Amino acid sequence: MPHLNDSTRGRLLFGGDYNPEQWPEETWHEDIRLMKDAGVNSVTLGVFSWSKLEPEPGAREFGWLDTLMDLMHGNGIGVVLATPTASPPPWLGRLHPQTLPRDADGHVEHWGGRQHFSHSSAVYRRHAAEITEALAARYGGHPALTMWHINNEYCTVDHGDEAAARFRVWLRRRYGTLDALNTAWGTAFWSQHHDTWDSVIPPRRVHYLHNPTQVLDFRRFTSDMLLECCTAERDIVRRYTPHIPVTSNFMPLWIGQDGWRWAEEEDVVSVDLYPDPRDPLGAQYGALVQDLTRSQARGPWMLMEQAAGPVNWRGVNHPKPRGLNRLWSLQAVARGADAVCYFQWRQSRQGAEKFHSGMVSHAGEQGRTFQEVKRTGADLRRLAEVTGTRIAADIAILHDWHAWWAGEQQARPSRRAGLEGVLRAWHRALWEAGLTTDFAHPEHDLGGYRVVVVPQLYLLTDAAIENLLGFVRAGGTLVSGFLTGVADEDDRVRPGGMDARLRELFGIRVLHEWWPLEAGESTECDGFRGTLWSEEIEAADDVTETVPYRGGELDGLPALLRRDRAWYLSTLPEPDALRALLARIAADAGVRPVLDGLPPAVEAVRRGELLFVLNHGREPVTVPVPGRHHDLLTGTTVTDGVRLDRYGVAVLRP
Amino acid sequence: MPHLNDSTRGRLLFGGDYNPEQWPEETWHEDIRLMKDAGVNSVTLGVFSWSKLEPEPGAREFGWLDTLMDLMHGNGIGVVLATPTASPPPWLGRLHPQTLPRDADGHVEHWGGRQHFSHSSAVYRRHAAEITEALAARYGGHPALTMWHINNEYCTVDHGDEAAARFRVWLRRRYGTLDALNTAWGTAFWSQHHDTWDSVIPPRRVHYLHNPTQVLDFRRFTSDMLLECCTAERDIVRRYTPHIPVTSNFMPLWIGQDGWRWAEEEDVVSVDLYPDPRDPLGAQYGALVQDLTRSQARGPWMLMEQAAGPVNWRGVNHPKPRGLNRLWSLQAVARGADAVCYFQWRQSRQGAEKFHSGMVSHAGEQGRTFQEVKRTGADLRRLAEVTGTRIAADIAILHDWHAWWAGEQQARPSRRAGLEGVLRAWHRALWEAGLTTDFAHPEHDLGGYRVVVVPQLYLLTDAAIENLLGFVRAGGTLVSGFLTGVADEDDRVRPGGMDARLRELFGIRVLHEWWPLEAGESTECDGFRGTLWSEEIEAADDVTETVPYRGGELDGLPALLRRDRAWYLSTLPEPDALRALLARIAADAGVRPVLDGLPPAVEAVRRGELLFVLNHGREPVTVPVPGRHHDLLTGTTVTDGVRLDRYGVAVLRP
Amino acid sequence: MPHLNDSTRGRLLFGGDYNPEQWPEETWHEDIRLMKDAGVNSVTLGVFSWSKLEPEPGAREFGWLDTLMDLMHGNGIGVVLATPTASPPPWLGRLHPQTLPRDADGHVEHWGGRQHFSHSSAVYRRHAAEITEALAARYGGHPALTMWHINNEYCTVDHGDEAAARFRVWLRRRYGTLDALNTAWGTAFWSQHHDTWDSVIPPRRVHYLHNPTQVLDFRRFTSDMLLECCTAERDIVRRYTPHIPVTSNFMPLWIGQDGWRWAEEEDVVSVDLYPDPRDPLGAQYGALVQDLTRSQARGPWMLMEQAAGPVNWRGVNHPKPRGLNRLWSLQAVARGADAVCYFQWRQSRQGAEKFHSGMVSHAGEQGRTFQEVKRTGADLRRLAEVTGTRIAADIAILHDWHAWWAGEQQARPSRRAGLEGVLRAWHRALWEAGLTTDFAHPEHDLGGYRVVVVPQLYLLTDAAIENLLGFVRAGGTLVSGFLTGVADEDDRVRPGGMDARLRELFGIRVLHEWWPLEAGESTECDGFRGTLWSEEIEAADDVTETVPYRGGELDGLPALLRRDRAWYLSTLPEPDALRALLARIAADAGVRPVLDGLPPAVEAVRRGELLFVLNHGREPVTVPVPGRHHDLLTGTTVTDGVRLDRYGVAVLRP
Repeated sequence: MPHLNDSTRGRLLFGGDYNPEQWPEETWHEDIRLMKDAGVNSVTLGVFSWSKLEPEPGAREFGWLDTLMDLMHGNGIGVVLATPTASPPPWLGRLHPQTLPRDADGHVEHWGGRQHFSHSSAVYRRHAAEITEALAARYGGHPALTMWHINNEYCTVDHGDEAAARFRVWLRRRYGTLDALNTAWGTAFWSQHHDTWDSVIPPRRVHYLHNPTQVLDFRRFTSDMLLECCTAERDIVRRYTPHIPVTSNFMPLWIGQDGWRWAEEEDVVSVDLYPDPRDPLGAQYGALVQDLTRSQARGPWMLMEQAAGPVNWRGVNHPKPRGLNRLWSLQAVARGADAVCYFQWRQSRQGAEKFHSGMVSHAGEQGRTFQEVKRTGADLRRLAEVTGTRIAADIAILHDWHAWWAGEQQARPSRRAGLEGVLRAWHRALWEAGLTTDFAHPEHDLGGYRVVVVPQLYLLTDAAIENLLGFVRAGGTLVSGFLTGVADEDDRVRPGGMDARLRELFGIRVLHEWWPLEAGESTECDGFRGTLWSEEIEAADDVTETVPYRGGELDGLPALLRRDRAWYLSTLPEPDALRALLARIAADAGVRPVLDGLPPAVEAVRRGELLFVLNHGREPVTVPVPGRHHDLLTGTTVTDGVRLDRYGVAVLRP
Repeated sequence: MPHLNDSTRGRLLFGGDYNPEQWPEETWHEDIRLMKDAGVNSVTLGVFSWSKLEPEPGAREFGWLDTLMDLMHGNGIGVVLATPTASPPPWLGRLHPQTLPRDADGHVEHWGGRQHFSHSSAVYRRHAAEITEALAARYGGHPALTMWHINNEYCTVDHGDEAAARFRVWLRRRYGTLDALNTAWGTAFWSQHHDTWDSVIPPRRVHYLHNPTQVLDFRRFTSDMLLECCTAERDIVRRYTPHIPVTSNFMPLWIGQDGWRWAEEEDVVSVDLYPDPRDPLGAQYGALVQDLTRSQARGPWMLMEQAAGPVNWRGVNHPKPRGLNRLWSLQAVARGADAVCYFQWRQSRQGAEKFHSGMVSHAGEQGRTFQEVKRTGADLRRLAEVTGTRIAADIAILHDWHAWWAGEQQARPSRRAGLEGVLRAWHRALWEAGLTTDFAHPEHDLGGYRVVVVPQLYLLTDAAIENLLGFVRAGGTLVSGFLTGVADEDDRVRPGGMDARLRELFGIRVLHEWWPLEAGESTECDGFRGTLWSEEIEAADDVTETVPYRGGELDGLPALLRRDRAWYLSTLPEPDALRALLARIAADAGVRPVLDGLPPAVEAVRRGELLFVLNHGREPVTVPVPGRHHDLLTGTTVTDGVRLDRYGVAVLRP
Repeated sequence: MPHLNDSTRGRLLFGGDYNPEQWPEETWHEDIRLMKDAGVNSVTLGVFSWSKLEPEPGAREFGWLDTLMDLMHGNGIGVVLATPTASPPPWLGRLHPQTLPRDADGHVEHWGGRQHFSHSSAVYRRHAAEITEALAARYGGHPALTMWHINNEYCTVDHGDEAAARFRVWLRRRYGTLDALNTAWGTAFWSQHHDTWDSVIPPRRVHYLHNPTQVLDFRRFTSDMLLECCTAERDIVRRYTPHIPVTSNFMPLWIGQDGWRWAEEEDVVSVDLYPDPRDPLGAQYGALVQDLTRSQARGPWMLMEQAAGPVNWRGVNHPKPRGLNRLWSLQAVARGADAVCYFQWRQSRQGAEKFHSGMVSHAGEQGRTFQEVKRTGADLRRLAEVTGTRIAADIAILHDWHAWWAGEQQARPSRRAGLEGVLRAWHRALWEAGLTTDFAHPEHDLGGYRVVVVPQLYLLTDAAIENLLGFVRAGGTLVSGFLTGVADEDDRVRPGGMDARLRELFGIRVLHEWWPLEAGESTECDGFRGTLWSEEIEAADDVTETVPYRGGELDGLPALLRRDRAWYLSTLPEPDALRALLARIAADAGVRPVLDGLPPAVEAVRRGELLFVLNHGREPVTVPVPGRHHDLLTGTTVTDGVRLDRYGVAVLRP
């Protein structure tokens, strides 16, 4: 199978989405000049070009794209060629209204924006296949082509009639019989028994509370239908170019797609990453997405989109302060990216994204934004040797979309305790402890890790539970947060409110009640404060260690339990406490941080032989690094430490 | 007519909703064992069993229910048998989409939740009647049957075409002629004159502000249509079992049903009560609902549903701390309940309510929740003698749904001054003063009361006004809050902004303007602070007493007026002030609290001969009770006082 | 052309909307008595009378209106006669559902409120024309008629199919070819190219972000369609009464209508003005609306609606404290009003606006509200000589609806920096500096002004830019706030992010990035604090003056730039700082306040020969006024100053 290496060919890719149909041809030549100036070696073409390529049904206008492909090739710039299927031309919706998605209330999503397609529409799929095939046939042999980019940020949902029909097909495949579906969905409750397949519908508006397994399956179905759309296009281009890798860009930590399943179908895993430049935890969030993406890719990955400056979709959109674009670009490389790209090359003057920055901003060549892009490009060239290298981690954080979906149901113990916030808190604690982490699926082979961390996995299959038990049996250390192992694959609560095997593992005799906390509320524990959640637990007699709650209704009951190498946290400790706890557990398991004595806000990651040290603070800092190293960025040698300016980075070769 | 006594037969009912269709038959036998262990003597079957009983149109599967009825009877547990019409099977909506309700925007409420039926649908009504008749025919003679439970928490609204047609029929019946409707609705304003009945529609989405009388009548109509559904089913079961009482469970203080009208049609008045365990005013709220329900029932009533632990529909769902379930259960008995039941017996493992607690929680028999249920059941057995006894009150609080509906109109002086909050504030003040209160409709005979309290009755009929005047003339003391007597039955503002007879009664010469207060704002009065509202009033010369506003635009004008025994409060005093004021007025009228010198958070109620003393605080407390009493719960004798632990209760017989 | 003078005939109009169809005929005579008592000389009839005039299709019932017209004339009260087309009778929607508007989600707006008409419906337009023609034919010659009032507060939007068809016609007229439309809308982005006119639709619900030029044009179209409705009715009445002026009342600072375009089509410009009596900036807001309306009218204007007391549509509706109704009425006259009217004469007892106050409130004749109305009417009679006189201003604030519409697009740098707030902040600063200002369109002749102020004009046409440049070249002083000159007429961002000519004018070499501020955030500048916004600017070498940012990422960069007489402010200074800055700039340009040494909260305006001095404070104050003046309100002579009570006003003739 083709691989990201087939696109990178020994250098880090640098570039971005290029939408030249917005500009007159003279601008294209100006663009080429600036791209070369900035060291751009890759552009993504065609993401939103359907109506340009097929201005009316069946028409084909490829001349402009021929010109651009040639122009790129002639200037040594590779092309990631996109299928344009994320935004069908207006004529598709006009002629075939059934291609437009409907929300749970029946509202239609029209053209005039983007992503106005139903994943379930046969007509949409046929038209998407035809334009994809036309592109593959015409450009499959073009020397500029380095990668295929399918669609863009798949994320649509449809509750319409054609989706309902496909949902039934999907459910028949999953359950075989209607009885099995009725059992899985628990339709005995609230009189929801289906007597024929025809009465099964998407979770459209109800008077009060959806059936949660119906909603869970609809999320599964939606992810699968989008994936069907994606692989259908992939299969077409693969027929023409079996040697060219294929990707489809994810939105970061996006709930809508089963990321593990999707990644298996891609040659290259790519992601779009837009932390808020004003978020004090922007670096932590970026690192999480990067670690997750690398884990999905099982190696180097592609940063398909980031912003050179502000985005346009927040309430207040902040530019990147001097140095931040470079810092976050290098952070991606440190955490496994072999490609650093932007949306988009030249900032639009028109349309819905004209206030989303580009590598060339409205201020043009002389703008600070472009100057920083240029500097970043130059730095990336200095790091060519990192291309293709890997990152080793002794710790894995478990994540699973199905658990996330099930956990997000409408009526649950607390709407404050959703997975995303909890996941971020745990990853942040490990990041701040200087510990490098992978992500893994709960059924993955965990043999390579010393410590496995489960921030929250509300739903766990039996296979996953056995996997965890086996990991601990084999000598691994397991740390779990609350709301883990509550439900089985069908969102059926396990007897006792938590799987009996897991309770046994952690030393929980009885889980009496969950005590979720209100916003602003915390709970005193011995030595730290807990947030978000607490639990009324009766510990087993043979528990190894407990830390109790102090005061309140849970006074004296265990906030933290350990039975041998299995730890259970029934609350979310405040950041410093969680960091200290995880550092201690890691140390006990023989896992040490990349560098000792890291100052706050400094990140250290080892990729291949290279040590990346990144200062996310606004103050200069000296980082102790034992021994002598060569800094690839400055070309200097540093001994026993490196001085980093605000947002400074060193990439050290021993 | 049959009566709750026919179900209780000398003991307090204890039990809950039982939905055994969720469980395999072996669990049923386990359930019986635990029910007997907990002292359960009543279960409610069939509330959501329609699709189990009639899995396809016209089919009947009653065998499982036969088994359960027999099982219950064989174990001495009575059955409250429900008509399953609150949640039609999916096939009804699939085959008859017109049975699905529409909201004001035209959105359809689908199956997949519950209550997806239009009260106006003839097809729904026919199917509901058929399944009801089948149940009545089959189980009318079963010895386990102790009560009929119609539907569940009637609450749906429909703006669709069939509802529109019935609305017109309802309006014809109310008004006779279209002229009368036009007059009542004030269609002369904003050009809303109806020239034919066909143009009259439900209050569907408008550009700006609905006609408020149209909305008021639509609320009346909706309550009446739901009641038609209810009485149609009642009449069917009554034909088979004239000796078995019938109920339909209310939601507490629910705006959607005219509670006085509904109660008249029921043999047993029952309510579902779910105070938030974290609400510091949960006991006060519970007492209000209990007093209202008792008043609707004109005697003992049934607590149809409460939660043994957390519910699932709040943002954060708190369990009940140790002792609270028992405390609130006994509070219900103290205030007239002859039945203490839960939703539901065994906590679901699947479906939308699996995080709503059960008497047997996910933790099972050994969970604290079940243990507390068991203790409560034991205590209720000790109180058998209270069954059927009554509570005497010298004070009545007036409440009327029509006034509530009219007061909730979109455009009004203040959206902050809605009836529910005001009602709760007044009832709380009386509760905290230790004064036992009934509720009454403003047209009820008030002759048995010494004091009548009107927290807010925006709309008052002429008959109601005459009733109030007669009450005062006959020597009664009347206390009224603001926004009372503003509108007539058609929501027509009475000349002067408040009925002239009432102004005369209270000594108000001119009501110049309402001065509603912003959130966080209060107004200084002589001796207390007012909240929510104030008024620019010119007092009559012959007013008996006034308390003036101090400072601000209303400086010196009366905040409180009294003319003889008629009091008017133009603001809402802060809780302590309102309590002190009402205590003084009651004392002047010769009404004393149940016990003198009650500590804060302690409630005392006399039911029949028994004195209930309840400690809602978390600290132990000693309550002075003059004389010697026997405590039914402990079997001990107490003299001149009783010591209550946290959440402790004593039930004292002289 | 007829003019407001033709209605006023030497006196200020005083009165209000009169909706007598709500009352029995005996009340009409009582109304006449009270009107005469209050000095009412003008009433507006018929605004919502359609269903009374045409109770069924084609019927005509004009007798009641004949009576009222005669009654008014017989009592010396002029009639502003309204076309009743803002609220069609229910039969129109029932018989012709296509006359009902749809929102972007497809929801229909029904009858039962008001303004349930689609501006695009041919059927609506035909019926509106017929009833208008019937009124004009019948009352065109009636001696009571002094003005025509078309519809009411035009404000509806329609996304339905008939609107879509008209939108296409409008766009064809605007663009000529589909190519031109595609270019203007930038449909090359996101694959939005239209291949036929038929695929162009209103901006209905989309998955993600509308095309902003589509939205902008839809706003233009909506304003134009409403104006077509308006002028169609105007043309009908004008045919019958070419000598009678025509108006249609605006909502204040309403975004939905292009106020400059509309004003050109009206003989009289009128506005409805409802500041919140509790708003501490209510007077400032009122002054802004009054200045804008006067500028639209190019002379005297009409206050068509204000409230004598509370309105009913806020969450909490406050009455007017003693004196405020008079104060704000006189403020309107001070700023150019020749008519001071209310909605409505007698407060409704029924319907959606019964809690909106009237000149005669529910409290009736003896209510304070009517007494204050009466006092105001008496004062207006004392000011007859002001009628028709004009106000001179040396400063113009530029405002343009197209810039507002474009600036409000969904995805933009900051949703906090919308035009309305910025406009209010700048006008307030000038008001508090005692400087009288006009408003002007950016393409108006600015020759008569010394200072032109641009709070924010995101979109500027080339003509507008040339106009501004010419103004400065001719010696004028220009002050501009941020986000000005960003986009061209099609919402195409100008190269550099701001028009190059304007950058040159202000001395901006490069506009690197916008740095919008979060809520609660401010930025330190040399000598003041900025709010809402900041910018990363590189100044040109030849800039005359700069004030730098201090601290943060922009430290040392210019917050304020000046090049000769052109000032640019890249942040919004706090109120005191903006006031001081504008006072200084005005003084440098030779513009002085109306009075020197004005105490805070005191307003001074010169209208014709008269000097209005208004105390908006609650404390008495002495205002220095050099020389001797006659106070028209008290009839006294004042020397070198005037003493004003709380809310006091003096109108001084030298």
